[in-house]
Formats: sequence, structure tokens, C-alpha cells
Amino acid sequence: MKSEVVREIKGGVTAPVGFVAASIYCGVKEGNADKDDIALILSEAAAVGAGTFTTNKVKAAPVLLSMARLRGKGARAIIANSGNANACTGAEGLDSARRMCRAVAKTLGVPEREVLVCSTGRIGVQLPIAKMEAAICGLPKRLGAWSADAARAIMTSDSFPKEIAVECKIGGMPVRIGGIAKGAGMIDPNMATMLSFVTTDAAIGKADLQKALRAAVGQSFNRITVDGDMSTNDTVLALANGRAGNKPLKSGTPDFAIFQAALDHVTASLARMIVKDGEGVSRFIDLHVTGARTDADARIAARAIANSILVKCAWYGGDPNWGRIIDAVGYSGARIRPERIGIAYDGVPAVEGGMPASTPAARLRAVAKKKEFTITVDLGLGHGSFRIWTTDLTTEYVEFNMGE
Amino acid sequence: MKSEVVREIKGGVTAPVGFVAASIYCGVKEGNADKDDIALILSEAAAVGAGTFTTNKVKAAPVLLSMARLRGKGARAIIANSGNANACTGAEGLDSARRMCRAVAKTLGVPEREVLVCSTGRIGVQLPIAKMEAAICGLPKRLGAWSADAARAIMTSDSFPKEIAVECKIGGMPVRIGGIAKGAGMIDPNMATMLSFVTTDAAIGKADLQKALRAAVGQSFNRITVDGDMSTNDTVLALANGRAGNKPLKSGTPDFAIFQAALDHVTASLARMIVKDGEGVSRFIDLHVTGARTDADARIAARAIANSILVKCAWYGGDPNWGRIIDAVGYSGARIRPERIGIAYDGVPAVEGGMPASTPAARLRAVAKKKEFTITVDLGLGHGSFRIWTTDLTTEYVEFNMGE
Repeated sequence: MKSEVVREIKGGVTAPVGFVAASIYCGVKEGNADKDDIALILSEAAAVGAGTFTTNKVKAAPVLLSMARLRGKGARAIIANSGNANACTGAEGLDSARRMCRAVAKTLGVPEREVLVCSTGRIGVQLPIAKMEAAICGLPKRLGAWSADAARAIMTSDSFPKEIAVECKIGGMPVRIGGIAKGAGMIDPNMATMLSFVTTDAAIGKADLQKALRAAVGQSFNRITVDGDMSTNDTVLALANGRAGNKPLKSGTPDFAIFQAALDHVTASLARMIVKDGEGVSRFIDLHVTGARTDADARIAARAIANSILVKCAWYGGDPNWGRIIDAVGYSGARIRPERIGIAYDGVPAVEGGMPASTPAARLRAVAKKKEFTITVDLGLGHGSFRIWTTDLTTEYVEFNMGE
Repeated sequence: MKSEVVREIKGGVTAPVGFVAASIYCGVKEGNADKDDIALILSEAAAVGAGTFTTNKVKAAPVLLSMARLRGKGARAIIANSGNANACTGAEGLDSARRMCRAVAKTLGVPEREVLVCSTGRIGVQLPIAKMEAAICGLPKRLGAWSADAARAIMTSDSFPKEIAVECKIGGMPVRIGGIAKGAGMIDPNMATMLSFVTTDAAIGKADLQKALRAAVGQSFNRITVDGDMSTNDTVLALANGRAGNKPLKSGTPDFAIFQAALDHVTASLARMIVKDGEGVSRFIDLHVTGARTDADARIAARAIANSILVKCAWYGGDPNWGRIIDAVGYSGARIRPERIGIAYDGVPAVEGGMPASTPAARLRAVAKKKEFTITVDLGLGHGSFRIWTTDLTTEYVEFNMGE
């Protein structure tokens, strides 16, 4: 997946020139005193921002506010908290999201409209905003190369902080992109929320940054599913401050393609980390649907397979149960001809022409028992394809999410 | 649910006059010697048939054959086996389904085209058809009032046989309807298949029987979901032989309405039995979505809630986690306005106007810990509604379905 012109470096979101990060403990959710719960990412220079947001019609207050803020010109800072999603909180919730931004703006001296905000955690509970404003005042003196701490502060049920950074050369100039993310893990246990923040010192206009981010998210975060639920808070934000000094990137140029590859590497790496850190996950499945009439058909077939409770249970058991896969394809709504369908596990054929292949069951079982394998479902109709990274459904997952 | 004009009687599918049933052990699936695995239902007089079938695009051979057979005039018999779904079996599978019907026709002296066929069990394995033909020859001498035995012979992972019969008065004449069903349980473990066979001695034309059956299925089997997967074999068949001697039923008349109510009672009762017998199920949830812009919107919202892995895990834990419900509504695709949404557990408000109601958490928890409760989700937009019967997702379910 890593191209030759893109190399991984250390530093996460603070690897790009001119970005600093900080985290602090506030006690957003009571009783979590051992873990920072507010993170800040700041571009020391002027920057532009881009974002992609949950398509859930129930959107948390910080999602609504950040969407609106990105219509403005510049974006300098991202403030985020864990422990409380600030969702289903009405006008008071929207006011609290604004107050988080205002506190950052005041304490750092940046325009309030250039501060973006995210929350993750419990739904339907108002933020302890006064306490949070006080905590935010403590952030400036902590700013530094603290990417991993910021990544840790936005964690909920994640078992490890997720960060990555890469460097590529654009017009001879080194350009850096960094990212952190938190996983599709249940919170509190309440909701799966995916957050990711990307920074870059590339010089790139707002519209081109948005275009690149949308494409990168389409190839990464939009291709992962642990449990099929899409949260009220899912957000990916990117800031670009131009400090690398490259000639501004323009969509459609070879330089832009290099930047896109580097950004794709960042988002894809973070997306894989999220899937592998899914609660109680025991297997990672790289699912390809090919030969569909259209990419859209491939996508709905892939999503039906990846979100089938029965398919996921079979994966947990290491059972190469292709019957459940073909069943899910059948009800997915994708256009199919059953007699054209082929299914393979790590390239070993399980189904050919809609019927069992002659492969001995033991060979398929050997693949299905691996911790990580590929399933290819060829619909045999056209050139549409879609790839999705997903996981099994385990008893541990159910126990983790049964609450109370 | 039971109307005054409809009373339950004993006898299942053999309660209506002129119907007999039988079951026999064949060994369709090796190693199951203690359980009959072939069932036969026969109308001793001429009868008409109706059916509704899976909308899965991957349809098992018996589904394809029975669909075609129902285009003909009469239908006298239903032959069904458990242990093998005869799905993904190609031309040989279709030939085997035909041979099952032919064996019944020969041994009973009924026209082959009037025999319907169903299978449930493992996918992708050819039927042991020669052995089955021999077993079918043993069925005629076993025919009698053996509805429960037929119900048992089609069971897979069901824990109890499902049958019911009712009697109603139509134009002063007693008319009977009987039914058996097998559940949405995993097989072998391979696939969730729902089968139901309904018999009636009502005099009713084929088109009107189809109309009544479609309406009854829409209010019952199409409103249940255990795991959201729809099998390649799901089938509901009905036979009507007119032996009650009533004036033939015509759609749109008061008599037809009585018949419909009786038929609805039969299918709804069987559907509830199926849900309650879902694998590892610990709670039964009666989910109503109301106030939607349209019934279709209510339906997609209800299905999104009922099939959400996270929502089902919370139900398992007895956790009144309405955040997951509102989240599922948000991504369902139904038209909503978040600030209009209300959610109640057994009438106790959890959410009002898209925000937490003031109900103490303990009161909601008390409902969510019940074995059976109602959740009402009012979208507050219009008059569309949909009701669904569903269950929790348990660790036992996952263990049962992990295979191997």
C-alpha cells in the first residue's frame, strides 16, 4: 500500500511543520481521573481546513458547528473531548460546543470562527462546560510535539492510540502529513464514533484540500465497518498551513497525485488500525467484491456481507461458511445472477458458478482459521468493485456492548 | 389479538376437513437418526394453492419449482424436508426437487404438477434423492392427523414444533384454518430459513387465497426479524379445499374479512412462536415506529433499529440505551427531524423532542430488564407506522452460529 515516494516518519499530527498538540485532564466523564480527556491541535500559522462528517441525520452539536465553521475561510485549531458526545443535547448542547471553541480562541488568541470542535462519548448528557472552559485555559502551556497524547485523550474504548505521519517530495520540497484517530469502539458503552484529525504543512487551497480529503476518506474510513452502525459524531478534519513552502497544489497535476497518495496512506493506515482495534475482534477480513455491474452494486453487496450477523459469527468460528455470504449477496439488492457468482478465501475457490467448488473443505478451513484473510466475491457481471475491511462478531463484543 | 369470531382449536394443519399429514425418517442429513426429516401435507380433495417466497435473488431449487407450480390451477400436496436446503445446487438440484414431487405424485396418485416442495438445511450439498424417493414411498400409510409430527419433521434448530388452528363462522358454516411453521433458526449451522404451511377447508378461489395470504404474511412473517438475514428458502404455502361448504369467499365482502382475520391470527401466532424460539434469545421486543411521513419510512426505521447489532446487544443487557436507537433511526434513511423524535419503553418516556426525558433511569431500566416489552419510536412527522417483533443478540446466539 505504501508507494515509493511516500515514507513513514515519526510525530503524528505534529510531524508537519508548524503544528503543535496538547492534552489535558478535565473529568468530562466523572470517575476517569487517570486519563486526559481534552485534546487540542493547533497550527501556529494561518491554515485552511476541510472535513467530512457523518451522514447520520441525527448529528451531534459539534458536528453541526464544525460543518458551519468550515464554510469560512481559515481553520487554525481543533478542540476535541472524549467522555461525552454532546449529541441529543439541543440548544444548550450547541451553545456548549460554541463555548469550547470560544475558550480556545480566547486562550490562544486565534479567531473563534477558525476553531473546529469534536466530541465523543455518552449521548444525551450535557457537557460540564464550565469545568471544560477552565481546563482549556490550561492547554496553551502544554502545547508541543504531543501527538500521541492528543490521540490518547480522544480514545474511548480503544486499546491503543492511533497515529501516523508520512513525508513525500513535491517539487523537490519535503511535505509532511500527520494523522491521529480514535476507533469505532463503543463508548461508556454507548456509541461507536470514529474521529480522525489530519495535519499537513503542504500549501494547498481549501477546495483542493477538501477534494483530496473526500477522496482519501472514500478509500479508507468509508470502507471500514465493525458493526455497521454509523454514529452521530463521526468526523474527519484536516488542516493545511503551507509551511512546507511547496508551490500550491492544484487538483489534476502530478504533484497533487503525489499528495493524494500520501494522504491516502495516512487515512488507510488509521482506518486499518481502527478495524483491528474493534472491540473483541478476533479476525480481520479484507473483503473484495468484484465483477459487479457497477461500483455501487459492489458496495451494497460488500456492505451486506460485512454487516451480516450470521456471516460475522461464522468468521468468529473460523468457519468458511460461504452459504451465508451468497445469501447476503442475494438479499443485498445488488444486481446478480446466482449462477455467475464465485467466492474465494485467500484465492482458494469456495464457490464457482454459484455452486460449491471442488476444493477440499480442509483447505478452506485452514484459511478461515487465520487471523487475517481475504475474501473475494466475484459477481461475474461487469467491472464494478468495492473493497471493505471488516471483522468478526465475537461473544466478547456482545458482552462488551450489553451495557449495565 | 384474537377476535371474538375466531377461536383456537386443536389439530394444526389437519384441523381443516379433508387434510392429512405424515412424517418419516430418511436420513437426509447423516447422523440424525432420531428425528423424522420429511413431512407431507395432503388435501384428500381437489384444492387450490397460494404462496409467498423469499425475495432473496439467490433462490433454492424448491423455491423456483414451487413458484412455477403455483401458476397452475390446482395444488394438493406439500412435500418438505429438513437437513438440506437444496440451494446452490444447479440443474441437479432442480431435478432433485422435481423427483421429490414426482415420488409423491406416484405414491399418492395425484398430478405431479399439484405437488409443491420445500427444503431447509445445509446449502450447497446435493440431496440424497434416491434415498428420499424410497422414504417418500413410505409416507401414504402414515397419513393421518399428524400435524405436530409434520411440524417436528421440518424443524432444524427450533426447540419446539410450531402449530396452531382456528375456527371461524362464515355464513353460518364453520370454517377452519391450520398452520405449522419452522423458525428463523440456523441450520447445521448454515442458514436461517422460515417455512410455514397453512391449510384451510374454506371455499375460496386461487386469486383470493393468494390475496389473503399475501396480506396475512405482510402482517406477520414479514414483520419479524431475529438477525436480519433473509434465506434462500423462505416460503409460506397455503392450500384451500373448500370442504367447509361455505359460499365461495370473495375479496371485499364481510365474509372475506372474517376469513382474513382468522388467517391473520394463524400467521401472527406462528410468527411470534418463531421469534420467541430464536437461538439464544433472552428478550422479545415489540417495536412500533409511529409518526413517520409514510409507512415505508416507518418500516426502514424499524428495520434499522431491529437489526442494529448495538441495539440488540443493549437489549440483551437490559440496558435502556435509547442513544443507539436514535442513532439507528438517524442512519436508516427514513425522513426524520431529530428534534421531533420521542422514544418510550412500555409507554415510559425515554426521549422527548429528541432529548432525554426527565424519567428516572431506574424506571427505564426496570422495563428494559423485562423478558418482553414494547418500544415505541414516534418520529412526530406524520401518520406512517410499522410494527416489528424482534429479539436481543446474545452471546449464546454468537456461540450457536460460529460453526465448526
